[in-house]
Order: sequence, then C-alpha cells, then structure tokens
Amino acid sequence: MTPVVSIIMGSTSDLPVMEKAAKLFDEFEIPFEINALSAHRTPEQVTEFAKYAKNRGIKVIIAAAGMAAHLPGVIAAQTTVPVIGVPIKSSLEGMDALLAIVQMPPGIPVATVGINAGLNSAILAVQMLAMSDENIARKFEAYKNNLVNKIVKANEELSQVTYKFKC
Amino acid sequence: MTPVVSIIMGSTSDLPVMEKAAKLFDEFEIPFEINALSAHRTPEQVTEFAKYAKNRGIKVIIAAAGMAAHLPGVIAAQTTVPVIGVPIKSSLEGMDALLAIVQMPPGIPVATVGINAGLNSAILAVQMLAMSDENIARKFEAYKNNLVNKIVKANEELSQVTYKFKC
Amino acid sequence: MTPVVSIIMGSTSDLPVMEKAAKLFDEFEIPFEINALSAHRTPEQVTEFAKYAKNRGIKVIIAAAGMAAHLPGVIAAQTTVPVIGVPIKSSLEGMDALLAIVQMPPGIPVATVGINAGLNSAILAVQMLAMSDENIARKFEAYKNNLVNKIVKANEELSQVTYKFKC
Amino acid sequence: MTPVVSIIMGSTSDLPVMEKAAKLFDEFEIPFEINALSAHRTPEQVTEFAKYAKNRGIKVIIAAAGMAAHLPGVIAAQTTVPVIGVPIKSSLEGMDALLAIVQMPPGIPVATVGINAGLNSAILAVQMLAMSDENIARKFEAYKNNLVNKIVKANEELSQVTYKFKC
Amino acid sequence: MTPVVSIIMGSTSDLPVMEKAAKLFDEFEIPFEINALSAHRTPEQVTEFAKYAKNRGIKVIIAAAGMAAHLPGVIAAQTTVPVIGVPIKSSLEGMDALLAIVQMPPGIPVATVGINAGLNSAILAVQMLAMSDENIARKFEAYKNNLVNKIVKANEELSQVTYKFKC
Amino acid sequence: MTPVVSIIMGSTSDLPVMEKAAKLFDEFEIPFEINALSAHRTPEQVTEFAKYAKNRGIKVIIAAAGMAAHLPGVIAAQTTVPVIGVPIKSSLEGMDALLAIVQMPPGIPVATVGINAGLNSAILAVQMLAMSDENIARKFEAYKNNLVNKIVKANEELSQVTYKFKC
Amino acid sequence: MTPVVSIIMGSTSDLPVMEKAAKLFDEFEIPFEINALSAHRTPEQVTEFAKYAKNRGIKVIIAAAGMAAHLPGVIAAQTTVPVIGVPIKSSLEGMDALLAIVQMPPGIPVATVGINAGLNSAILAVQMLAMSDENIARKFEAYKNNLVNKIVKANEELSQVTYKFKC
Amino acid sequence: MTPVVSIIMGSTSDLPVMEKAAKLFDEFEIPFEINALSAHRTPEQVTEFAKYAKNRGIKVIIAAAGMAAHLPGVIAAQTTVPVIGVPIKSSLEGMDALLAIVQMPPGIPVATVGINAGLNSAILAVQMLAMSDENIARKFEAYKNNLVNKIVKANEELSQVTYKFKC
Repeated sequence: MTPVVSIIMGSTSDLPVMEKAAKLFDEFEIPFEINALSAHRTPEQVTEFAKYAKNRGIKVIIAAAGMAAHLPGVIAAQTTVPVIGVPIKSSLEGMDALLAIVQMPPGIPVATVGINAGLNSAILAVQMLAMSDENIARKFEAYKNNLVNKIVKANEELSQVTYKFKC
Repeated sequence: MTPVVSIIMGSTSDLPVMEKAAKLFDEFEIPFEINALSAHRTPEQVTEFAKYAKNRGIKVIIAAAGMAAHLPGVIAAQTTVPVIGVPIKSSLEGMDALLAIVQMPPGIPVATVGINAGLNSAILAVQMLAMSDENIARKFEAYKNNLVNKIVKANEELSQVTYKFKC
Repeated sequence: MTPVVSIIMGSTSDLPVMEKAAKLFDEFEIPFEINALSAHRTPEQVTEFAKYAKNRGIKVIIAAAGMAAHLPGVIAAQTTVPVIGVPIKSSLEGMDALLAIVQMPPGIPVATVGINAGLNSAILAVQMLAMSDENIARKFEAYKNNLVNKIVKANEELSQVTYKFKC
Repeated sequence: MTPVVSIIMGSTSDLPVMEKAAKLFDEFEIPFEINALSAHRTPEQVTEFAKYAKNRGIKVIIAAAGMAAHLPGVIAAQTTVPVIGVPIKSSLEGMDALLAIVQMPPGIPVATVGINAGLNSAILAVQMLAMSDENIARKFEAYKNNLVNKIVKANEELSQVTYKFKC
Repeated sequence: MTPVVSIIMGSTSDLPVMEKAAKLFDEFEIPFEINALSAHRTPEQVTEFAKYAKNRGIKVIIAAAGMAAHLPGVIAAQTTVPVIGVPIKSSLEGMDALLAIVQMPPGIPVATVGINAGLNSAILAVQMLAMSDENIARKFEAYKNNLVNKIVKANEELSQVTYKFKC
Repeated sequence: MTPVVSIIMGSTSDLPVMEKAAKLFDEFEIPFEINALSAHRTPEQVTEFAKYAKNRGIKVIIAAAGMAAHLPGVIAAQTTVPVIGVPIKSSLEGMDALLAIVQMPPGIPVATVGINAGLNSAILAVQMLAMSDENIARKFEAYKNNLVNKIVKANEELSQVTYKFKC
Repeated sequence: MTPVVSIIMGSTSDLPVMEKAAKLFDEFEIPFEINALSAHRTPEQVTEFAKYAKNRGIKVIIAAAGMAAHLPGVIAAQTTVPVIGVPIKSSLEGMDALLAIVQMPPGIPVATVGINAGLNSAILAVQMLAMSDENIARKFEAYKNNLVNKIVKANEELSQVTYKFKC
Repeated sequence: MTPVVSIIMGSTSDLPVMEKAAKLFDEFEIPFEINALSAHRTPEQVTEFAKYAKNRGIKVIIAAAGMAAHLPGVIAAQTTVPVIGVPIKSSLEGMDALLAIVQMPPGIPVATVGINAGLNSAILAVQMLAMSDENIARKFEAYKNNLVNKIVKANEELSQVTYKFKC
C-alpha cells in the first residue's frame, strides 16, 4: 500500500500525542507512514522528504513539533501538499510551539490545530481526503454522528449523581 | 419539581468543578438540572436546549467549558435567559477558556466567573433568583453573613502559631 | 422615578465606554443612575453605596474599572445585589483589569463581561431584570431578534463588492 | 457557476482582511461566495449554512472572526467540510480570537491560520482543492515558485543601500 | 509589646508563604501581629483594621492575597501607613494576583514584591523601619552582609563537582 | 538642603513619567535629587551611587527603568536604603520591565509600583518618610483626604450628562 | 574585501531595524554583506547560503525575522557558524518572533537578542569577532567606554530641569 | 590549564541545568570553570569577576539565572567578553527570566538561549571559540553531523510501532 498521509514528528517523545492520529487512520483504513525528522538536526532529510512527498503519493502531511517548532513551516515551504501543524507542549504550556507554527508569513500557511491535538490533526486530514473520496466521506459522516454518543454516555453518568434538589 | 436553574457541562470530567454548584443549589433548596451537552459534538441538542429552556421554566443557565470554550456563548446566542459561563482549566492554565467565554461580541453577553469557579457560578445564579424571590434573598443574606466565619476559624488557627515576637 | 440599575465608574474617562450602557437603558426605558466612585479614593462612599443600594431599590449594579480594578469586587463584597464588572482597557491591553475583576475568590462572584464591553454589561442587566418583568422580557426578545438585521445590512454591503469569480 | 469555497465573516469590518482571500480566488479562477454570518447574532442562519454547504457543492469553508471567535468552530461542528479559521485582531492583539479558534476539543478540528492571515487562509484552501484538481495544482505550483520573486526584488532594493564596508 | 508590623493574609493556606516573614521578624526581634482578613468576606473588619492600624502603633502593613487580590489595595485605600503587597500563586501562575496588586491607580500605591515572596516582604518592612531606627539598621546591615555566605557555601558545593576539563 | 530622596532613571526619555514624582516632592517640600544612571552603561557610577547614598542622607531611592530593567535591583543589591522600582513601558506593554523589577530573588526586595506609575512611586516614598516625620505625616493625611475631590468633580461632570431614564 | 559578517532579513521592511547593525559595522570598519532571504519563500537559497557561508569566509551570521520567525533557526541548523537572531515586531508585540527564535531545541542554539534589537545584534557580532582580533577588541573597548557619555549628556539635560526642592 | 569559558550560576540549584554545559566542555576538552555568583547577594564579587575575566584568559562567559534574572546583564555591562544568558525556570514558566535576560537596552547585548537550555549555551560557546580555533571547529563539525543519529535511532523505535494501515 502506498501511504497517502505522512506523520512527521521531531522525536519519539511526541509519540503519545501522535499515536492518536495513527489509530484514527487505522480506524479509517487510510494508509499512512510515521517517521521522525527534525528541521534542526536533519535539515537535508526534511528537504528531501518535503520535495518528494507529493511524487510518492502523499496527499497530506501532519507535522508535530515543540518549542520553537519550525518543522511544519519548513516542510510547508518546500512542498505544495497541505501541511497540518500540531504544537507539542514541552515548555511555556505549549504557547511557544503554537505561535511558532500558526503565525506563518503570507504565502506559506500551516493548518494549525490545538496544543497536543494529535487526534484533531488526523480528523482534519480525513476531512481533506474526504473532499475527493466518497468512501472516506461516508465513513467520516458516520464518525461525526457518533460523537453524540460520548455525550449520551456522559449524561448517563450524570443521571446517577443524585442531589436533593436535582429535578 | 420544575428546575429553575440548568447546569450544562461539556463532559463529565467537569463534574468535580460543577458539583460545588449542585451542592449550593441543594443547600438553597433550589430545583435544578444538570446535563452534559457539547457545542461541538451535539450542536442540535444545544440549539434545542437553548430554544426551549425559557419555556420549560429555566431562569438561569450555567455553562461550563474548557479550551476553545464555545458552549456558554452558543447557548447565550439562542436564548434570552441569562447565561453564566465557567471557564474550565484544561490547557494554558485556563486562559484559553476564559478568553473564549468572556470576550463575547456586542449584543450577546456571558456573565463570566473565574477559572474553575463552580461555586461562584451558583452563587451568582442565586443572586439573580433573589432579585425577585424574597425567600432566596433572605437565605442568601444569611449565607453571606456566614462567610465571616471562615475568617474567624482561620484566625483561631493562626492564634495557635506562636513566634517569639508575635504580639 | 426610582432607579433599578446603578452604573458606577472609577472616573469620567470611562464614560465613552459606559454611555453605551446608559443609552440601552434609555432604549428599554429602565430607570438608572450613573455615578463615579473609586474603591481606592473614596472607600467610605463605596461602602455606603454598596450597603444601601438594595434598600434604595437597586436590583443590579454595573461597575467599570481599569488597571488593578477592585471596584466591582469591593462592591460585591458588601451587597447581596448581583454586580456586573466591566474591565476597562487602560494598560496591558486591559488584561490587568480583566483578571482583577473575574478571578474573584469563592463566595463573592462578579458577573464579568468583556474588556470595554459597556453595551454587553447593560444587556446582561436587562436579562436579569427580565427574569421577573414580562414587559422588559418582551422588549428584550424583540431587541435580540433585531440583531439579525446588522448581518442583513452587512450582506447587502458585501453583495456590492464584486470579484470576477464571486458567484 | 457554483461556488466551491465559501468565505464567511462576522461583520463587514473584517473585509480588509478577507478581501486578500477573495482576490486570490479570482487569481486562481476558483468560484467562491462571500457572506457575513454571526455565530451569535444569527445562529439559525449559521446552522442552515453549515448543514447545506456540502450539498450546495462547497468543498472548503473559510470563517473569520474576532474576540471570543466562535464562528469557525460552530460551523465545523455542523458540517463535514473542512473549515479554515482566521483569527481577526480586534482586542488583546488577536490572542483571544486565536485561542478561541485553535483550541478546539477532540473531534472537531479547525484548520487555523495566523492572526489576520486572510491571504494564507485562501492559499490553504487552494492547496486542499489542488489535492484532487490537477489544474489548480499546476497553478499553485507556479504561484509558489513565484514567491521567490519578492525576495529577488527585495535584494534589488537592498543592493541600492550603500554602506562603506558593505562588500 | 505593641506590634509595629501587621501581617494580614486572606486565608491560613497562605501561611507557608508568610511564615518566612514571621520568622524574619523574630530574627530581628521586631514585634508583629499576624491575622487572617478577607477584603471580600470580611470587608468591615478590613475597614476597621485599616482605619485604626496607625493609631495602634502599626508602622508597616504586609498584605498577602491570591487571584483577584484586592486585600493590599483595599487596605492601602484606607490608611496612610505604607502597605506591602505579596501576590500569592493559586491560579494562572500568580499573574492574576501580581497584576491585581501592582497596577494600582494614581494616588494609592502598594509596594509590591514578587510572587510568593513572603521573605522579601518582611525584608522590605525591615528596611522601612530601619529608616528611623538605628538598632534595626545595624542588624539589617549585618543580615545583608551575611547573604554572601550562601554563595560561599554554593561554591564549596560546586568545587566538589569534578569534570575532566574543569580548571 | 540635603536631599532625602533620590530619583534615578535610565535616560531622559523617562522624564515625562518621573516628573510627576518630582512635582509631588515639590508639593510636599521634600528635598530630592534627580539623575540619570544606567545599570548597563554606567555600572561603576551605579555602584558608587548605591554605596554612598545612605551616608549622603538619602532615605529612599526611586529607580525607573524599561525593558530588562535591572537598575532598581542592582541598586537594591548594594544599599540598605529601601528602593522603589518603576517599570517603564517601552516594549511588550511594559510587562518585561515589570517582571524584571518585581521578581527579585529572596534577600533583595524592590518595592515595585505599577507600569509608568511615577506619581505612585513618590507617594510611596512620602509614606515611608512619614513613618518617622510627623510633619510629612500630617501633610500626607491631608493629601489623601483630598483624593475624594477628584471623584466629587467627576460626579459633577456626570450630573450634566442627561439621559431620558437617568433618575 | 571579503565580508566576515552576513546580515540576512526576511524582507526590506526589516531594514529600519537592521540598518543600525549595518552602521555599526561601518563604524568598526568590518566588511559585511546584507541580503534578503526567506526561510519560507526561498528555502533553497537559504540552504545554499547556510551551507557555503563558512567557506566564503563568513564568521558570524545575523538573521532577523518576524512572526513565526524560522529564518535564524533554519540557518543555524545548516551551518557551524554562530547565528545571532533578531526578533522583529510585527504582531503580538513581537512575542511570537521572540519565542520562535529563542526556544530552539537541544543541539542548535540561536544567540537571541531583544525584540527589534538591530544594534545589539551587531555589537554581539563585534564581541565575537573581537575574541580573536585585537584591533576590533581595542575599538570595542573604546566604544564601550563611550556609552557613559550618553548618561553624562542625559544628566546635563536633567540639570536644566528645575524644581523648587530639587537639591 | 587556564579556563577559556566561565560558567556562572546564581545558586547550586541551577546545577542540573548547567551540568549539561559542563559535560559538553569535557567532551570538547575545553578548559572551563564553574562558580556561583549572585548579582544581588554578591555584587562586588560579580564586578570583580566581570572586570578581570578577560585578563584571566576567559573568552566566553555563560551566566544562568532565574526570576528577575540580572546576572547575565550585569556581567555584560562590565566586560567586553561576550556573555551567553540562560533563563532558568523557577516561576512564571521561566518567562520572567527570559524577558529579564533578552530585553537588554541598546549597547549591552546578552546572547540569550532558551529557557533551561544549558546544553545550547555550551554549544553556542563552542561555536564562538571555533571561529578562531580550527581544532574545536573540526570537533564541532563532527558533533553536528552526529545529531542526525538521534533521529535515526528515533526512526528505529518508530519502525517497531505497528499499525494496521501503516505502510
């Protein structure tokens, strides 16, 4: 299988955040790859990766990074494939990574999701793929409808909490 | 009993914060309901809830949410009942939730209390109800006078801490 | 006429923000008073004001203050009437006033609106009064429905902006 | 022509930011629509819009909002179409809007771009459309290569600034 | 002994921070008192305290408070005695308390020390008392010279850490 | 006349902020000196100044500085005289100067006032001097009582603003 | 003349900040070059530049950038020459650029100076060159001694400001 | 051996951060010294140190400090040797130390690295020394090439994580 999504992270310490993305792609049966690359320690590999991603069939890139998080922006600068950025919290509550990813200059956007939002990065990738893939689109519609269930379950839990004046 | 206050929270993980509100309503013998609803996962139920709250006799709504906390504002947009917003701390020390709740545009206020301030949200609701209910007003007057006692107790504790030059 | 709402501000420099509140009360024909009082320069008058507000018939207090904005909290500590706090922007983008108003300790809430949100403070007061006044409730329902018109007007403006590929 | 991109903004005061997006779609000959809708003032229209956007052929939605910016998230909650969020600076340097857009809860991502980044929101939309449209993909490749020219021009300007020890 | 310094705190939970102040006054043999008072829960007692502090012989007041920390400012508003404010960290890393204490309006300063800086509040009080008390002045001179010793001890520890190329 | 207060500032650009302090000392007939000294450009002069200030009769030092504002702390480290720090706003809304002044390590406090709070720095100095000077104490009592007048004047202005429903 | 310092900026709009650096190199008669390069718009040229800078004789690189400022870090990743980073203020008071430059991951430091600190970036470069160039070292010693003069001039200005009680 | 690098820290509690620097100098066989000095508790020793560092053969100084971190700036003010500043996190997530170090006034730069970035401070020192020492330059080139290996190892770890649709 040729991967259509590529997950890139700066170090394996980001895996607990990004494995939520990997699991979603499994759930949606979307072929993906997952690798570690660093804008700072392996700039050449990043360039290589970014330049050939499209030709290898990659349609969306997800890049996670912390601190002065350059990885998503550096990749975005070198490919036409849309790049989703995930700010990783490792200092300053993740505010440094958020600003270093989202505040890109005119011309090179990064589609930024919330701090440590590994799952949301994958959902966004699924939505992009669903734009031209009816199969994924149908699955996503079902997935989204299913979100309601969490709330139903939450309400069941709440109904068991009793207070005197709870109606 | 018909509830006059409705407590809404995004997930049951907010319960430790909001149960302080529930307990206060018990103490004041004010009928209330407590449910989970998500502006993002169950938008239709939120609309339903907001639209019919007043007709069901709800006089004040308390909505708690974290992160990009839209729940209080989304409810406020769809009801004339006053909405009290409780920012829940789950990232960025709760600053994201605070700003996402308090900085509402002209036309649609949310009465915002402090980060994780479940108790204060209920006290504020009691104050609103007391505007036209002498019974609640009297109870609240007593409750407020009672706050002094915490300080009395604190001073008793402090009087037992001895220093050489403490007078 | 006896006022039911009292607008308090720290100095007349806050008037441009708070006159939006005054105008709304005019629009709703709600009797109000507007005064300057300072938690720091006139603490006795503030105490006097807070203690007798309820007996004078005041049902809601709106207090606006900037910087280390103590006015709303100091009033709230000394009355059972609900207090709406308006953070005024005069330094640090208004963040100091926002935190000094919203982060009240357990027991003494202030219903905080956005930075410089004079209009929203009045709308919130109207909502509180509407809880037990059908006349105000009807007017507010109409006011709220009317907010749609701003958007209609905005869309008329936008329809006159032409782009080649605008559909 | 049926629009494939929909630009939504809270008020016409956001137009100076978002017209950069409109102009890019003109440049790429991508049919689009541009409207004002408010999550707070016109919640029903927003729901209507979000629910039928996909059926009308909309493939990407761009939503711009300031302050407690709920519009992008509220739309994202009610559609499977990817939503790009543009935080508008109108208070707190735009930090409130940024956090209220990017910090979405698990399940409902918004693809966030920088503060006031109208152009980048459109480029990101183009990249998404290019995933399945070779024509747009080719144009975008050319557009991207062209970004170099800004730098060439900048260097021409710099070459005319003379210093004694500039080599 | 009549106290010359009065330490006030909002609750006994602030004692771990403020006992460093108490210990320093013991060390300097300066008579002091330590009490809990809340600007919000016991406003009358605070007014009472502030108004009569000077007549009771209090020369400096130290007030510690967290969150929307009004205590130092409210006391300062009602006495001519200098007030030292100690921001207590209990939310937002203590930034809320810092701003609510330091950003006082023109006319009513609070001498603010760092977040949780109980010791420094006492040292500052000692410096103020030393302005007109030669005995305290001499002791403080000795205390200050002694601070060097901490560094001497630190260097002894460091000298035992060995590295190959440490000179 | 021998000065008892010394005002130090990093550059003459801080004069508009600090002349409010100078004027207050004139009003209180307190002899003072005002000089420019920089912790960074003239470290030796700062050391000289700090070391001999007390012997020259200086009882309080006011130091104003912006950005990485070291001046107040560096002086405080080298004298036993109490040092009042005034954060000057020249970047980051003055937050950098505030933190660089107030967050002093244990042992060396700086009595910090608000951002650009030149007047308050002088009032605090007056309060410190009043601790042992009955003449200054009396004048300050009068000054403080006078603050009420600002509010009286403000209310006169407000009484001339007429609204239909203003009571 | 072969340049030993290379000034790189993202666009010519950064020139007002960086011309202070250029002028200092003129003053020190240090050969330098000044160019525009963008980590995002011209990644290949940046790589080219970074890789060959050392071989061309460049000993220090100064890189200025705003927003999600990647330029200094991206260059640092691809050269062994020390890189000085200048955060340019263009949004969020420059805080985004500061964090995106200074918070580099372990292995790849950027020597960061203050926001818009063009002059300081050049002084730091001079200090680095002075480590092995006695001529520059002597000039810098003189330059540094000269900083005192600014203060002398400031004091002359201050001596002309007269107050009644200024000593 | 005469040290060429001097590591200064405010207290031994900073050692866990700064020992990474010490270890790197060991690895590079660069003679160094490591001491504790406080800008606030031992100002004379700091002046002594700063003034004679260059004559003793010190080529680079690394100064680590937390809170209102004055140490790097105070040293930089009194030497022509380049000073690298390391902000230590001990309050406010280290933001206070970062701003107090990096925001130096024109004339006195500090080469600031990230919060708690002990290793990076040493790497930056190595880069400065390598400017005129071919031996160190060669070692650093090797060190830098070696950074790639961390990523290789990371990818080996990632290759063992298996997902169904991982390619």
